[in-house]
Amino acid sequence: MTAPIRLALVGMGKIAHDQHLPAIAAGQSFDLVATVSRSGESVGGLPFFRDVYELAASGLEVDAVSLCTPPQVRRAIAQYCIGQGWHVFLEKPPGATLAEVIALRDAAAAKGVSLFASWHSRYADGVEPARAWLAEREVKRAKITWREDVRVWHPGQDWIWEPGGFGVFDPGINALSIATRILPRPFFVETAELDVPSNRAAPIAARVSFRDTAGAEIAMDLDFRQEGPQHWDIEVETDDGTLLLSKGGSVLTIDGKEALAHDADLHGEYPGLYHRFGAIVRAGVSDVDVSPLRAVADVFLRGRHISVEPFVE
Amino acid sequence: MTAPIRLALVGMGKIAHDQHLPAIAAGQSFDLVATVSRSGESVGGLPFFRDVYELAASGLEVDAVSLCTPPQVRRAIAQYCIGQGWHVFLEKPPGATLAEVIALRDAAAAKGVSLFASWHSRYADGVEPARAWLAEREVKRAKITWREDVRVWHPGQDWIWEPGGFGVFDPGINALSIATRILPRPFFVETAELDVPSNRAAPIAARVSFRDTAGAEIAMDLDFRQEGPQHWDIEVETDDGTLLLSKGGSVLTIDGKEALAHDADLHGEYPGLYHRFGAIVRAGVSDVDVSPLRAVADVFLRGRHISVEPFVE
Repeated sequence: MTAPIRLALVGMGKIAHDQHLPAIAAGQSFDLVATVSRSGESVGGLPFFRDVYELAASGLEVDAVSLCTPPQVRRAIAQYCIGQGWHVFLEKPPGATLAEVIALRDAAAAKGVSLFASWHSRYADGVEPARAWLAEREVKRAKITWREDVRVWHPGQDWIWEPGGFGVFDPGINALSIATRILPRPFFVETAELDVPSNRAAPIAARVSFRDTAGAEIAMDLDFRQEGPQHWDIEVETDDGTLLLSKGGSVLTIDGKEALAHDADLHGEYPGLYHRFGAIVRAGVSDVDVSPLRAVADVFLRGRHISVEPFVE
Repeated sequence: MTAPIRLALVGMGKIAHDQHLPAIAAGQSFDLVATVSRSGESVGGLPFFRDVYELAASGLEVDAVSLCTPPQVRRAIAQYCIGQGWHVFLEKPPGATLAEVIALRDAAAAKGVSLFASWHSRYADGVEPARAWLAEREVKRAKITWREDVRVWHPGQDWIWEPGGFGVFDPGINALSIATRILPRPFFVETAELDVPSNRAAPIAARVSFRDTAGAEIAMDLDFRQEGPQHWDIEVETDDGTLLLSKGGSVLTIDGKEALAHDADLHGEYPGLYHRFGAIVRAGVSDVDVSPLRAVADVFLRGRHISVEPFVE
């Protein structure tokens, strides 16, 4: 039995409360020792700090930090934490640009700490079984449908509409984190249309056509204006049946039949992430896969902007 | 003395005529054996083909190809050529997206052929001396000014205004290929404004603020509407003097004095590229640095679009 890793949680917004706190509490690998937020929020009487500089100055012993701040301000905080010798867990997306994530990866390697670019959707129960099933089949085409109501899921998150917040690609990158994991061949943007509200800087909806190295089309349909039923689905047609990964990766259906084995190793998304973070810290390695962020950057690089009606929350 | 490498030149547009043909003729490493273009253009009585599939079907012996087609159609051609076992020289930018370049790099490695993502501006005479000078100094700030008249330099190149053509970042990526080579620390986009003509899909001008890992600002000013004097300058202020790389990297000035040693190893940009391509083919390696393309993708990812007046050539 090794000692738990002493963790500070930085950026006490919606995701920290909804997912990180319960996952840390449920797991064995981490001891939460402090929280950091501009508002000075404390959790369960633990020490709290306004920023990571105050945390470092306090002398409190910390081994690792989880950064849940918006992506636009995360790089400078992460660079500082790596400089302190702390292992760093980055919420998704790991940054607002690719170059900063590459530089953080190199800085972590130079300092000898672990950097984890987390992709929570990859830890949904259906993802690894889907990957295994597709690895033995020939993909003919795929369709990604990610349609959710931004007012329900991202209330008051103005940063999402700013440059670097990615708009509908904030959830869309979750779909791409699954697609880049389960599809057997690399794929590339061929065309993309981004619907950008005239009063915002980031897209509210998008249609992307990717193609893989064997010519199979992967179509993606994202929309933040979805009312009623919400959709987080990836459908893959193969030479030997059709796979449907729905509810964000948690339900796997093959040819219309539910196909998920109940595996004792399954943790759920955020417990799975913390399990993985603990494992890489103990192994002394990093886990930084930028391919979902690269896919989004490629969409913006190759995409056509279309101005649409203003969005007012 | 080794035998020259048999080369086919693909995409007989402006850059092929202005730069590739003279550089191939001037060097010793390559024998031009065929040209490929939709128009069926022949050069000096050599065999010519409409596309690379006709070239392969002809049975003509080819070791390598240089791809000068627009970036939007280059990936499929490059993938086919790698499949034929040909070494591949990619004009800049190496692709319309990052993911396709990574996949080509992996395909070339699997096939055992050399892939060269060329960046011609890095072979301008002042670049390596600038890199060496900056490596020993502390960069305080830098300013990139790249202002040229699109009507003069890109006549009739409609692809440049389409998604994946990058607009003013087609020349701007040359500046970034130099900056990523000479600046000693990694840098990232903090803010970017892209001026996009209302009748086009790509920017005609841009202002970008990058920052490096030590906090130094790198400001970039790009404009395709420049009449009169043209500017392709990078100025770097250090703790020990100011460096100016002008005329696209060919003139180096330090504290106002011209500082370029005349080096017998200098080739000029495209002869330098072919020298390098020959060297990597003979060494059995690839040279694929995506950092300039990644910087452009990051600008589009993080940038704010501003609609400006239509551009009519």
